[in-house]
Amino acid sequence: MNIYGGIEAGGTKFVCMVAGGPEDVREEIRFPTTTPDETIGRSIDFFRQHLPLKAVGVACFGPVDLNPLSPTYGSITATPKPGWSNTDITGRLHAALDLPVAFDTDVNGAALAEYRWGAARDCDPVLYLTIGTGIGGGCLINGKPMHGLVHPEMGHIRLPRDPKVDPYPGFCPFHGDCFEGLAAGPAMRLRWGQPAETLPVNHPGWELEAHYIALALSDLVCTLSPKRIVLGGGVFDHPGLIERVRVSVQELLNGYVQSPTILEHIDEYIVRPGLAGRAGVLGAIALAMEM
Amino acid sequence: MNIYGGIEAGGTKFVCMVAGGPEDVREEIRFPTTTPDETIGRSIDFFRQHLPLKAVGVACFGPVDLNPLSPTYGSITATPKPGWSNTDITGRLHAALDLPVAFDTDVNGAALAEYRWGAARDCDPVLYLTIGTGIGGGCLINGKPMHGLVHPEMGHIRLPRDPKVDPYPGFCPFHGDCFEGLAAGPAMRLRWGQPAETLPVNHPGWELEAHYIALALSDLVCTLSPKRIVLGGGVFDHPGLIERVRVSVQELLNGYVQSPTILEHIDEYIVRPGLAGRAGVLGAIALAMEM
Repeated sequence: MNIYGGIEAGGTKFVCMVAGGPEDVREEIRFPTTTPDETIGRSIDFFRQHLPLKAVGVACFGPVDLNPLSPTYGSITATPKPGWSNTDITGRLHAALDLPVAFDTDVNGAALAEYRWGAARDCDPVLYLTIGTGIGGGCLINGKPMHGLVHPEMGHIRLPRDPKVDPYPGFCPFHGDCFEGLAAGPAMRLRWGQPAETLPVNHPGWELEAHYIALALSDLVCTLSPKRIVLGGGVFDHPGLIERVRVSVQELLNGYVQSPTILEHIDEYIVRPGLAGRAGVLGAIALAMEM
Repeated sequence: MNIYGGIEAGGTKFVCMVAGGPEDVREEIRFPTTTPDETIGRSIDFFRQHLPLKAVGVACFGPVDLNPLSPTYGSITATPKPGWSNTDITGRLHAALDLPVAFDTDVNGAALAEYRWGAARDCDPVLYLTIGTGIGGGCLINGKPMHGLVHPEMGHIRLPRDPKVDPYPGFCPFHGDCFEGLAAGPAMRLRWGQPAETLPVNHPGWELEAHYIALALSDLVCTLSPKRIVLGGGVFDHPGLIERVRVSVQELLNGYVQSPTILEHIDEYIVRPGLAGRAGVLGAIALAMEM
């Protein structure tokens, strides 16, 4: 039985796991993201206690360099997070542990884990979208996580906004009212003057939130044609939100995509993660297994 | 040397080719798309004159069924084109020729041909987008054309439209002002009361057209992260259009996607097809080769 290390490297916390798979988790620790030296150092110390490992995977907050031919492959690039720009994560792990290190975005890792073990088993392509402080999307397609010129930045697609209905101009410093600018946590807080989780169940903010998420999903259906869409992030704990999103996606596509999956079984198409809060770190384990 | 048959099956015309590759074209014929019996019959007659062939590829107008497990795999499904709904193209070809038949969308075929031999050589992912009577997009990603629940329908993503600048509500019968509804040939004709090709070079319609195309491309860059974008369709013969699109994509992304390819070399990133009018039928040849 091969055992792997996995790091879900987030901007707020790191989760490190040693496992042979989701049914064979040997140990898991969580700690806050502080400086790169301290945070990566704690990860290395943890894995050193569990050697031998076959490989280590990192599912990382971005932006990251995923180009294997680039001199900065395996690094976090220009991030607003203080101290973390140009941090060579894979290089540090490899130097300290002398193990192969797999590296991808947090959302690509989560897509892979949900595909292997979660709510999107054997669904290729699978889209994993998470909504929190920011919005990120990952996709497994033709058997592999989706990379390209850089990596997808699905939070930054442009959505139609009717200023008469929603005068809030969006908070994205680059694009104003892109998807993230309109629908991530800070947008709800700034638009309504209170955090999303304090808005009453029937506050009109939830209808608007469902509308923007559904606009983005209908675009992503038209572009990627995923076989399943997994929605991560605490916002979907809000009662009724995912149901509103499903109905709105059907209304927006308006029968154009003639698939029974969308027309008749949308509750099995747009779903919550099967791995719950572990999709990220199990994604890192899955990345290590794919090496 | 293996020789293949290829069909670019379009709603207006069929192009059939027998070739070993783009440098080894044995014969090519074109004829108008009439009834399925007549049009597919002419294709079969043509290939019969050139047997033996190793396989036949079809790059087809849509919507099509690409699911190999479906009973209607290889068919055109519900098309507005009279007489063509539920036409089993691969079944008819296979029955008549007793050859393996590859089948995909016209734009996926073109993406594959541009990747193998054209303007996007070895660029994975590559996005091929064509603008004509309708708008279609294909993509080669992780080594293969992109399929999914159905196939991409990139012409139907939603774009922001400012009614003060553009009161035209779009012509898409499903979505009104989606990308196709705002930017395909009929939209230009209906908005300005004359066909696009008769609009003067400096008519404001061209600036608006560039804006909508750039909005769509910036969304597709954020979603697919293509390494190159190939733009097909006669509209790009208009002087200055592709240049305006490039500038507008840079402005819309606003430095967010930190790649020198976009920031400094966008003229090598957003390009015309290398195979010109043959991308479609060579795509069909390439599909046959991939079997």
